[in-house]
Amino acid sequence: MKLNNYPINRVLIVGGTHGNELTGVYLVKLFQQCPELIRRYTFESLTLLANPQAITAGRRYIDKDLNRCFLQQNLEDVTLSNYEDLLAKNINYLYGQNGKYPVDFLVDLHSTTSNMGITIILDNDQPFNLQLAAYLSSLHPEIKIYNSGKSGRAENGLRSRAKFGMGIEVGAVPQGVLNADLFLKTQNIVYATLDYLELYNQDKLPAFSHSFISYKYMEKIDYPRNEQGEITAMIHPQIQFKDYQALNPGDPMFLTFNGQTITYAGESSTYPIFINEAAYYEQNMAMCLTQKHQMTI
Amino acid sequence: MKLNNYPINRVLIVGGTHGNELTGVYLVKLFQQCPELIRRYTFESLTLLANPQAITAGRRYIDKDLNRCFLQQNLEDVTLSNYEDLLAKNINYLYGQNGKYPVDFLVDLHSTTSNMGITIILDNDQPFNLQLAAYLSSLHPEIKIYNSGKSGRAENGLRSRAKFGMGIEVGAVPQGVLNADLFLKTQNIVYATLDYLELYNQDKLPAFSHSFISYKYMEKIDYPRNEQGEITAMIHPQIQFKDYQALNPGDPMFLTFNGQTITYAGESSTYPIFINEAAYYEQNMAMCLTQKHQMTI
Repeated sequence: MKLNNYPINRVLIVGGTHGNELTGVYLVKLFQQCPELIRRYTFESLTLLANPQAITAGRRYIDKDLNRCFLQQNLEDVTLSNYEDLLAKNINYLYGQNGKYPVDFLVDLHSTTSNMGITIILDNDQPFNLQLAAYLSSLHPEIKIYNSGKSGRAENGLRSRAKFGMGIEVGAVPQGVLNADLFLKTQNIVYATLDYLELYNQDKLPAFSHSFISYKYMEKIDYPRNEQGEITAMIHPQIQFKDYQALNPGDPMFLTFNGQTITYAGESSTYPIFINEAAYYEQNMAMCLTQKHQMTI
Repeated sequence: MKLNNYPINRVLIVGGTHGNELTGVYLVKLFQQCPELIRRYTFESLTLLANPQAITAGRRYIDKDLNRCFLQQNLEDVTLSNYEDLLAKNINYLYGQNGKYPVDFLVDLHSTTSNMGITIILDNDQPFNLQLAAYLSSLHPEIKIYNSGKSGRAENGLRSRAKFGMGIEVGAVPQGVLNADLFLKTQNIVYATLDYLELYNQDKLPAFSHSFISYKYMEKIDYPRNEQGEITAMIHPQIQFKDYQALNPGDPMFLTFNGQTITYAGESSTYPIFINEAAYYEQNMAMCLTQKHQMTI
């Protein structure tokens, strides 16, 4: 079961990469108060509240989205000195692969206003990450595995700093709100991940199914807009909360403020996620289209 | 049916009193683009996007909550010059009872992350407002009537500037998100209200039941907190989304981050609303307790 003979020596659990996603913020605060909850024998567990000023302000970010600040060229660009640019450089200096405490595995905790349930986000196809996803999937069949692929996260996301890693994205929950049910489910996935890493290090992984369904990023879809760039339509009621469900050619997609339905004009079925995520209105994204794959590793 | 012989001459429909509550913002934008939708014969319909800078920023407010800025003494205090203080003075100057275009009836459009469905908020017991609530209730039995009573809104809220008025509060919807279903329902209630005012002016109101259920504000309940003022518990999963449902002595109310249940210690049943509203974490309010009344007017 051991892949590439990598031992996991240091794990970083990150909350508050976006300051108004409270699930991760309060889970990390709990882990900081009760470190025994994340202590394991074979590796060191660290925690980080990634964007302290945004957490205090109750906002996603202060100057720019921290989870888009980790391009290698930006980290090396001395002219970039926005608050989040500086945070990214500091995080890389502390936990990056050439940093002070290089991290072998990173768990980045997020929440979304989309109905994503419990989603594991992988930013690449590394066998180590895929095997962990298969393990979590076999343990908790209700979770979804999303491969962010060409979305950019593998290059500019916070997780790109660690050797291996994943995001946990839970929803639907509004920004600035704690949902206890999703808090407890996220907590369970964190513990299952730490247990996996422990068993992996000890070469004691149990047998589990290496087959799972993965949703791979294809493209982002913007809202319909007028010449001034203002949106002219809403997510159609028929696909609101229908993340991970098939959207077929001709299915309703948007409803204009004047009551007109706009349908999906694609040529084949797709599986939209991040439907109606609050933070993505300004990023020109109404939803993200994915392809569904049966994976066997 | 005519009460006090008041004709309604001018109606103001307000969105964006809170800049991140998009239902009202986009409804008012629609009404501004298509004024025929709110045009009636016997009165003038005006629209207002109340907090333009907060709308642009996608935030509830810039300096302070606009819907707490309308105390008469504050409107007369020349030393108050925060952005929202100035907005309030300007709104009062334009639409207040001694203003340039005094408003007879005001509809203030809000949304909430709490599961309030379609709620009509009344800030007082004026027969004119109660009769309208009874009418809307008979037309749309699913709506709830909330009397904000001693909460302060009758004195410091934007609606206090008009002779009569009401709020429409819809949820659950995250801040910064448009939910098409709730948008359409809010639109219907606005039209029903304008139709009522038209029929009232024409003395042509049909017969309708003057009996309805009202939920009256009693007190606000804060989250459990530590000495530093940080919250130590979440809304218990058993009452999340259970707005307007009975909370009985001994029922679960909060769940601490350590997994302990905190129960309701009151002596009699109450009906909580605004459960887990995002904007109220900073206002020390986890929910608002109400009493349920059968009203007949």
